Amino acid sequence: MQIHSMWDDYPTLKKDLAKTLDLMSSSIDLPNKEIEQTIIELFHSGGKLLRPAYLLLFSAFGKNTDKKKSIALAAAMETLHTATLIHDDIIDEAEVRRGVTTLQTKFDKDVAVYSGDYLFIVCFKLLAKYTDSLRSIKLNTASMEKVLLGELGQMNTRYRIDITVDEYIQNISGKTAELFALSCFLGCYENGGSTKLASNCREIGKSIGLAFQIVDDILDYSQTEETIGKPVLEDVKQGVYSLPLICALEENKAFFEPILIKKDQMTDEDTRVIHEGVITYGGVEKAYQLADHYTQTALDLIQQLPNNKANTKQTIFDITKQILTREN
Amino acid sequence: MQIHSMWDDYPTLKKDLAKTLDLMSSSIDLPNKEIEQTIIELFHSGGKLLRPAYLLLFSAFGKNTDKKKSIALAAAMETLHTATLIHDDIIDEAEVRRGVTTLQTKFDKDVAVYSGDYLFIVCFKLLAKYTDSLRSIKLNTASMEKVLLGELGQMNTRYRIDITVDEYIQNISGKTAELFALSCFLGCYENGGSTKLASNCREIGKSIGLAFQIVDDILDYSQTEETIGKPVLEDVKQGVYSLPLICALEENKAFFEPILIKKDQMTDEDTRVIHEGVITYGGVEKAYQLADHYTQTALDLIQQLPNNKANTKQTIFDITKQILTREN
Repeated sequence: MQIHSMWDDYPTLKKDLAKTLDLMSSSIDLPNKEIEQTIIELFHSGGKLLRPAYLLLFSAFGKNTDKKKSIALAAAMETLHTATLIHDDIIDEAEVRRGVTTLQTKFDKDVAVYSGDYLFIVCFKLLAKYTDSLRSIKLNTASMEKVLLGELGQMNTRYRIDITVDEYIQNISGKTAELFALSCFLGCYENGGSTKLASNCREIGKSIGLAFQIVDDILDYSQTEETIGKPVLEDVKQGVYSLPLICALEENKAFFEPILIKKDQMTDEDTRVIHEGVITYGGVEKAYQLADHYTQTALDLIQQLPNNKANTKQTIFDITKQILTREN
Repeated sequence: MQIHSMWDDYPTLKKDLAKTLDLMSSSIDLPNKEIEQTIIELFHSGGKLLRPAYLLLFSAFGKNTDKKKSIALAAAMETLHTATLIHDDIIDEAEVRRGVTTLQTKFDKDVAVYSGDYLFIVCFKLLAKYTDSLRSIKLNTASMEKVLLGELGQMNTRYRIDITVDEYIQNISGKTAELFALSCFLGCYENGGSTKLASNCREIGKSIGLAFQIVDDILDYSQTEETIGKPVLEDVKQGVYSLPLICALEENKAFFEPILIKKDQMTDEDTRVIHEGVITYGGVEKAYQLADHYTQTALDLIQQLPNNKANTKQTIFDITKQILTREN
């Protein structure tokens, strides 16, 4: 088992994240042990575990931090995230995720569909087992609904060269920011934090999630296939235009249109031209400005948080700064 | 809106089923209205609505039947069932379901994946909104887990010509019988029925579900593509061998093996030969015997139920007999 090296400086958190992964793994019990093993491998494939980490860090803002419960909720968040990754990989027909062969490549599409579904259920199982309130189930359900609405909203904007920045933000508010928001909220709220404080935590999570997704989308334009671990600009072929391209399109639609119109028939040379064009027409730079805006909002809100006994406020500040200014 | 004609003789139930469909439809609110419309069309495409019907019928065994809550739970069950249908259709690459063009055909695979996921969430949303106990959420989660384990268990037995009747029963116990069991259980339990009575209802639902799936699988061998509304023996090509074929295989493995070994490369002529072989080697007949066994178990258990004010016991008996001896 490998916990991402970004947590090396935070030994308590690192240990709790290891426990989170353990709980996730032990919650999976499938008739086919080969499928089970592949899912568990995916859990342990070195993702940053940001959602569970934030949940655990924000749990210190509760009146009475319940470690066991927080780890279970953290496991629920990461399981949910993994479910969406598995279903994303079906759609992208991705062969590899974080160096692990995807379920639909190793087995078949059906295994990937049902495994994702199964992980959604495991998420609810963990929540229902460890929470004591229907309210948390309701909040979780509402958040999951927003995640899916974000994914389905993305369908609406596919292949649209006139997609606006606002539409993009709306899509990523659902598909990415919502789970960050929920993780920060639940960490505080489920450990007895006040509704007001938990609601602030939620806002922080949302800003982090927005900035995180923008930075992620920017990295598509500064990375090679090797360092990023998935094919470069594959999303563009499939009509999902992210912020750097949207900003560049605003600058020079005529440059991109003849290529984008080819849709999934775009060649590697086409994506190379798009890649260069996005940089040339300032798409990356503009996207960075918006990422900075959300990063700053998050950091400002974090600074306004009260202190807590476990001193996680500074950690939250530091790691947020680190992941939102990362270069890979 | 069209409610299946099998409910014509039960006007109260028919009205409640219409309300169930209304609630399902009004629970769907998507950014893309075309996708929303397609999902709602699927809801109204004339399925038998057996799971919600049983839930509503069994609700009369509670001490205090809460109609509004029962309709919401019924809607949750049918929404969940629809979610599994949508994901099944992705796997089968089905173009049509009950005469309605499938989501992945009308839009794309991603829409089908996320719409199914969304309906899973809507199911939990309905449950969380209308139930007052975490216990129901837990039970529902446990049932959904069994449904998925049944689907994933099916992977284990795919293309295996030595698959046993027991393995088949185990698969359909999860993927079909569990939702019937849960519907019957929740109907009684959530309306104040005793744990013992609700547990009996669960057993009845399980037997009905098993018999229902076996009859469904038998009908694949007695129907044409037109009457069944989906390609005949498509499942066999994909390695899912159902009871009639399993029984026929036990009789004459050598006849089927050279054809089955072609897997998804089987021609229409191949499936025709399998079709005939299954009848010749008594597969359909033997499958009928097992369907009869579970039907009889269900009917016996129903007769042992106490009477209730709404007099649904006789209705349950009659419609169970009807659907389990149906010929299409």
